[in-house]
Amino acid sequence: MKIIVDNRFSENSALHIPNDYMTYGGINRGIVLEHLKKAYIEYLHVEVGKAGKNGWKVLLTTKINGISDSAERYTLRLQADPLFTDEIAIDLEANESRIVQKEIYLENVSEWTPENPVLYKVRAILSDTEPMDDLIERFGFREIKVSGKYILLNGRPIRIKGFNRHEDHPLFGCAMPLQAIEQDIQIAMDLGANAIRTSHYPNDELFLDLCDEQGILVWEESHARGLKEYHMQNPYFQKQSEDCIREMVMNHKNHPCIFVWGILNECASETLYGRDCYTKQYRQLKELDRTRPRTSASNKHKKDICLDIPEIVSFNLYPEWYSDQNETAVDCIQDMMQWIRNNPVTRNKPFIVSEIGAGALYGYHTRTKDKWSEEYQCIALEHQLRAVLESAECCGVFIWQLTDVRISRERFENRPRTMNNKGIVDEYRRPKMSYEIVKDIFISYDDYFETNL
Amino acid sequence: MKIIVDNRFSENSALHIPNDYMTYGGINRGIVLEHLKKAYIEYLHVEVGKAGKNGWKVLLTTKINGISDSAERYTLRLQADPLFTDEIAIDLEANESRIVQKEIYLENVSEWTPENPVLYKVRAILSDTEPMDDLIERFGFREIKVSGKYILLNGRPIRIKGFNRHEDHPLFGCAMPLQAIEQDIQIAMDLGANAIRTSHYPNDELFLDLCDEQGILVWEESHARGLKEYHMQNPYFQKQSEDCIREMVMNHKNHPCIFVWGILNECASETLYGRDCYTKQYRQLKELDRTRPRTSASNKHKKDICLDIPEIVSFNLYPEWYSDQNETAVDCIQDMMQWIRNNPVTRNKPFIVSEIGAGALYGYHTRTKDKWSEEYQCIALEHQLRAVLESAECCGVFIWQLTDVRISRERFENRPRTMNNKGIVDEYRRPKMSYEIVKDIFISYDDYFETNL
Amino acid sequence: MKIIVDNRFSENSALHIPNDYMTYGGINRGIVLEHLKKAYIEYLHVEVGKAGKNGWKVLLTTKINGISDSAERYTLRLQADPLFTDEIAIDLEANESRIVQKEIYLENVSEWTPENPVLYKVRAILSDTEPMDDLIERFGFREIKVSGKYILLNGRPIRIKGFNRHEDHPLFGCAMPLQAIEQDIQIAMDLGANAIRTSHYPNDELFLDLCDEQGILVWEESHARGLKEYHMQNPYFQKQSEDCIREMVMNHKNHPCIFVWGILNECASETLYGRDCYTKQYRQLKELDRTRPRTSASNKHKKDICLDIPEIVSFNLYPEWYSDQNETAVDCIQDMMQWIRNNPVTRNKPFIVSEIGAGALYGYHTRTKDKWSEEYQCIALEHQLRAVLESAECCGVFIWQLTDVRISRERFENRPRTMNNKGIVDEYRRPKMSYEIVKDIFISYDDYFETNL
Amino acid sequence: MKIIVDNRFSENSALHIPNDYMTYGGINRGIVLEHLKKAYIEYLHVEVGKAGKNGWKVLLTTKINGISDSAERYTLRLQADPLFTDEIAIDLEANESRIVQKEIYLENVSEWTPENPVLYKVRAILSDTEPMDDLIERFGFREIKVSGKYILLNGRPIRIKGFNRHEDHPLFGCAMPLQAIEQDIQIAMDLGANAIRTSHYPNDELFLDLCDEQGILVWEESHARGLKEYHMQNPYFQKQSEDCIREMVMNHKNHPCIFVWGILNECASETLYGRDCYTKQYRQLKELDRTRPRTSASNKHKKDICLDIPEIVSFNLYPEWYSDQNETAVDCIQDMMQWIRNNPVTRNKPFIVSEIGAGALYGYHTRTKDKWSEEYQCIALEHQLRAVLESAECCGVFIWQLTDVRISRERFENRPRTMNNKGIVDEYRRPKMSYEIVKDIFISYDDYFETNL
Repeated sequence: MKIIVDNRFSENSALHIPNDYMTYGGINRGIVLEHLKKAYIEYLHVEVGKAGKNGWKVLLTTKINGISDSAERYTLRLQADPLFTDEIAIDLEANESRIVQKEIYLENVSEWTPENPVLYKVRAILSDTEPMDDLIERFGFREIKVSGKYILLNGRPIRIKGFNRHEDHPLFGCAMPLQAIEQDIQIAMDLGANAIRTSHYPNDELFLDLCDEQGILVWEESHARGLKEYHMQNPYFQKQSEDCIREMVMNHKNHPCIFVWGILNECASETLYGRDCYTKQYRQLKELDRTRPRTSASNKHKKDICLDIPEIVSFNLYPEWYSDQNETAVDCIQDMMQWIRNNPVTRNKPFIVSEIGAGALYGYHTRTKDKWSEEYQCIALEHQLRAVLESAECCGVFIWQLTDVRISRERFENRPRTMNNKGIVDEYRRPKMSYEIVKDIFISYDDYFETNL
Repeated sequence: MKIIVDNRFSENSALHIPNDYMTYGGINRGIVLEHLKKAYIEYLHVEVGKAGKNGWKVLLTTKINGISDSAERYTLRLQADPLFTDEIAIDLEANESRIVQKEIYLENVSEWTPENPVLYKVRAILSDTEPMDDLIERFGFREIKVSGKYILLNGRPIRIKGFNRHEDHPLFGCAMPLQAIEQDIQIAMDLGANAIRTSHYPNDELFLDLCDEQGILVWEESHARGLKEYHMQNPYFQKQSEDCIREMVMNHKNHPCIFVWGILNECASETLYGRDCYTKQYRQLKELDRTRPRTSASNKHKKDICLDIPEIVSFNLYPEWYSDQNETAVDCIQDMMQWIRNNPVTRNKPFIVSEIGAGALYGYHTRTKDKWSEEYQCIALEHQLRAVLESAECCGVFIWQLTDVRISRERFENRPRTMNNKGIVDEYRRPKMSYEIVKDIFISYDDYFETNL
Repeated sequence: MKIIVDNRFSENSALHIPNDYMTYGGINRGIVLEHLKKAYIEYLHVEVGKAGKNGWKVLLTTKINGISDSAERYTLRLQADPLFTDEIAIDLEANESRIVQKEIYLENVSEWTPENPVLYKVRAILSDTEPMDDLIERFGFREIKVSGKYILLNGRPIRIKGFNRHEDHPLFGCAMPLQAIEQDIQIAMDLGANAIRTSHYPNDELFLDLCDEQGILVWEESHARGLKEYHMQNPYFQKQSEDCIREMVMNHKNHPCIFVWGILNECASETLYGRDCYTKQYRQLKELDRTRPRTSASNKHKKDICLDIPEIVSFNLYPEWYSDQNETAVDCIQDMMQWIRNNPVTRNKPFIVSEIGAGALYGYHTRTKDKWSEEYQCIALEHQLRAVLESAECCGVFIWQLTDVRISRERFENRPRTMNNKGIVDEYRRPKMSYEIVKDIFISYDDYFETNL
Repeated sequence: MKIIVDNRFSENSALHIPNDYMTYGGINRGIVLEHLKKAYIEYLHVEVGKAGKNGWKVLLTTKINGISDSAERYTLRLQADPLFTDEIAIDLEANESRIVQKEIYLENVSEWTPENPVLYKVRAILSDTEPMDDLIERFGFREIKVSGKYILLNGRPIRIKGFNRHEDHPLFGCAMPLQAIEQDIQIAMDLGANAIRTSHYPNDELFLDLCDEQGILVWEESHARGLKEYHMQNPYFQKQSEDCIREMVMNHKNHPCIFVWGILNECASETLYGRDCYTKQYRQLKELDRTRPRTSASNKHKKDICLDIPEIVSFNLYPEWYSDQNETAVDCIQDMMQWIRNNPVTRNKPFIVSEIGAGALYGYHTRTKDKWSEEYQCIALEHQLRAVLESAECCGVFIWQLTDVRISRERFENRPRTMNNKGIVDEYRRPKMSYEIVKDIFISYDDYFETNL
């Protein structure tokens, strides 16, 4: 058996272009080779929702693919100790696929929350005379709702204290071992974070599993960063985007950690053509998952013409870094909040600062606190974070970014070391001076807004 | 007595703008307070030129300013041991100024050359009944001529192996002590250089004195960097430029080290308005000094419409750094040389690569030789320098730059550390890996072209 | 279930003391929990040896532990496709343990060599009515012999180009993930090494598995570093040493990569008490494994009184680093070689330089090549390696060390950063300048000595 | 004229040995060449002392050297505007030298204090028919007295917040330009220091001039560091020490900044032979200058047998760095203070902690605050400084040291980078993290003890 992978940039690759992160070659996630028998389980989706005051509705959707050339009878057993067990007889024609749904009502379950992320397992076993295939999935009892300017987790308005994170490591590229992924999550948690955004592509299952276990809220994002209109007009763009979104949602929707789906970071949301693309992708997301809100990290801000579509409005803001030096972070952010609350389209939606931050070269210190120094990053982050977190007009923030990351060589000019140096830790996970600042600020704000809804 | 200095940027400062180098505040050069009597010597200019096969013509121009309210008789003694001594009687009216010229023909003098930079002193003494003022100037016997594509120093075609240098130091700002200036010159010489360009302003006298003594050829440059047409339309631009050029030439023209005057680095030489400015400044230079060629470091290249005016054509080129990555340094430089030799306007002029180089963050090493690494700088510089120095179509090169320098905060984005990191040594004068590469290449090329003129 | 681990130093820990490496706390290797039935396989040892010109003798030793309260009959199946299959009936009394041996003669097998490290698998299956336990072991066909001053691998005299390596990583402590271990091995191989010494304790199985696969020769070493006589007089010393050696050999003896067992690095081999300890441990090693030579890395050199016991003599030498600055590396090493060849006890034994090297702080560069600079390390290593490898009197060298490693805080004084900084790469695996030097030298010497034995 | 200098170590150099600082070669201080006439002024010493409540006594001692072969009459004019003017007729025999003394009583002068360091100038002019030589000296009105455990500056008990400083710079070696010396003083002052110790040799006049001007108190020290008994038995030791002390005092005694003379840092003060040397040097000091107290920085502590001789007791202490890790800084220092106050010999003397500090490699940061990290240095210094400054039993502290300094190559082993890394700024004067800690602590303590004497 031979596997050929090719990560070269080409006209045929609409999403994978020279970008503000490095796309490594080779195989970078786990591969499983399975020996199939007459039929197998393609997926088992577990969708939970509150039902009444104390109850939960669980919808189990199993897809069975028959690959036998004759009609067969199978048994599908669904078992989630101690919650429920069920068996369903299934008659498949030759090579027939079947989606089997089962709805269950439960009480007295433990909820999944950041503070106490309880997970349950459900196992599907497909048998004829003997077991032929099985699939174990984990899930949690939690419900995400949007209510006015708040995002509710099991009814409580959550405050996002998050990080953007790339799958990137100087020793492993994007093929990070479990222990290294876990370390990143531990760093984020030590910093007081409760959320991570998978900028700018769906992440490794291992990461999502760990977030499920640790109670980290995840913004999972389809692949796309900084595409201009002409990029989006690439003939492969729509197809490749659809594939990416479908695979992301179908593979990851059981993860309780995921609380929002993101698409099209900093793309052409200010153009009509762009709006058409956003519309299609948002629609696809909704079809694949009715339970989670949707959003996009926009850098078009007041010129964005797609803010009416998603449930949540998200802006990437870099006051006191890229922007005019005479505008303070607090002025910039208050101005944005005001605009959002005054705009009929956005007035009644949650608002997230999906990126904020400043560059600092690890080990570069100056008493004059020049840009690129660790000292300057401290100042900028303190201004930025306080400006966001002080206000209830914003659900929270994802700092750009957890770690320094490598970028495409083509974009070297404002990326010292051909790296994006806005990490709170550097690529070797060494804390910059801002570490303690960010930690102090994050810890000083509660995970939930105090409010009477 | 009170001195007030102000280095703030304002609309009134046409040359001093946020730029790719830091303009420090305060007093940064020596100040002398003199007690004047009835008359004083403003300047003593010494202009030398070859006269016949073995002779030299020396033109001494002394300006005497009388500040007495009555007419007076003075004696001006000019003494240059062992070359000549002369006394001139001068009758000045009340408050009269007078320029006194004296031409002398000499033989058997030692020439000033990079290899053997012999200096002579001439002292002017102004007396009435007793000495009242004096002035000591140093000069050397050397002649700069342009001949076709060569620059001749005492008749021999010189090959420029130079550095661009800023007056900048992490410990002293631009107010560098003599010992630190000397160290920079020693570094340049250890690297095999024979020339320094005072980018982008006239330099401290101390620097020029040391270059006179060490035989370093100097391109001294008036103040201006990267001015766009609208900058040049600033109402103060013409006056401030004129002042700067006048002060530069009148104060420094005795220095034998200076072999070319430069103006208007990377300014709007591609526009008609720009051409008008270039024309005026070149004309002023010629009026102030007939003996040296003129040039400008252009980044407009084939679009430059001022190349017909000066005696020497100079281009700033950054192949394999800023430019399209598919163009090699050798292709870029050969293309430029070809264009210059095919263009009737430039065909018969010397050509200098006034800037070339690549950024490297001191201490940043990668095996993959990424941009900003010391390894990448080695590669780029080797390609660039060999491409220039291999050819006799180019008189040589000024590497950008000797040391890393601080820049204005406003230009931070592609300047890691708010510094220009293209130095061969960093700001603390620590050698980067490229040090040995540059040294090997510079040393391997002779100071003169082998040619029969 | 609860696991309690304690890595504090105490009087009860004879081998684990503040030392020139960090002993981390917690669980740092894989743990397996097994559900046992009536009997299980404790181990399966595979011992190979040349038999005649083309044949190999394979001795399989399986230990079966019965834990049933009644007598039982079992079948042990030994299967090594395509080499052999065999079944043995075993009758065990209640709770009886039994060692079962089987010798097999084979021809036409592929040998395990550094160039082509062919591995075979043997599976032991223990059954009564159905399979109850199994164990899969890997092995290779290779034989280590000592012949005069050479170490023979399948009859050819091997030249050791090796590294000392600690299990240490800034991100993972000593609990390194497989990918990080693999990376270390790749670095060593890229550097041209063919051997690694597990200084100063037995290593993770994962490491040995990877060395088996990559053809890396391993000096595996029992736990002990720099123990003085009074350390060795600790009442726990003998028992803890015995345990460590037994576990090391019993668990690892199947690995073809291991070519020598080491004990008691830099311990009190110059004392009579020390000699007694060395004698006991060497004897235990021989009892546990008759097939491999034994050695100790000594820093007592000419004062060592234990050199008669092991098959191989090994010295740790640091000329041009710790030692008298007037002694060159070449003088030091030639002096040692001469002494060894003139000494009746050592004259006819292979000699290994088990440690050599020099410290360099990553990123510390000086033109004056001061100690601790990367430049100095280059010079010292070049002198040291050439002095060793040029001569056939020495079987080779293990550089101290592959990577910078953390040390115990108590030993900070001559360990900048509380790290041992003699790595060719730093703790983040960033190459120092010496990387290319070492690589060039290692690659320039063949894996085998050219000789007619 | 030819000057030959030689800084090689040899048996003939008793004080200049491989040491914990680098001794550079070449000429490293200013040299003056003077054309002498018939007589010249060798020195002019100005000794001031309080006289009565508001008055000051000034003793002027001028040494005149006649070098005429005949007897001559001269006039010596001593002029210190606006304080006094005097003329003295002097008849010298052929080649006679003469010391001329003049005592003056003054009132209404401004005192020299750290807060307001007023300086006066006195000019000596030696004439026959016309001026022949002159000498300008500066002095200040301040008196140093020792009273019990306090050091009094003009009657007020001073608290020393000081730094040890070496003349050392990566760009200039020990030949530092004025601007660099000034910068060091500015750094010390910015850090809140009021004192500098010239460890371990007399310093450049420029330094003392600047300290006079800035009000910095100076412990000037003769040359010697860490000499063992056998070093002190070097036949050249006594003569070279005497020369050094004589030159130091005779050249520098006018500087008001110097408040104590130091000798023999960390030498063999625990031996009888050592005591003899200490005794001689202390005696010489007293003969040369009756006005200032004397001391030695001892690391023999309770074993020192020379503490009875000087007026001030000084100890070098490194708790929480070199010393036993279980002893806290506060315990160590309180123990020393107690011992000093209980010991009849030291009970009634001022006590200075002449060295204290901890190493930190610039840029080395660890969250675990390991030794050599900037974090650890912060902790150690905070403990050490507070322990000293909290108590009135100690007159204060000189931190070891202001800047990182280069050391002799021979002492590399516990000196990472062959540098002493205990600076609060590194060798490039870049602040370490401890900068702010030290500054905060120094600023929080007043320059004087609050006490009623």
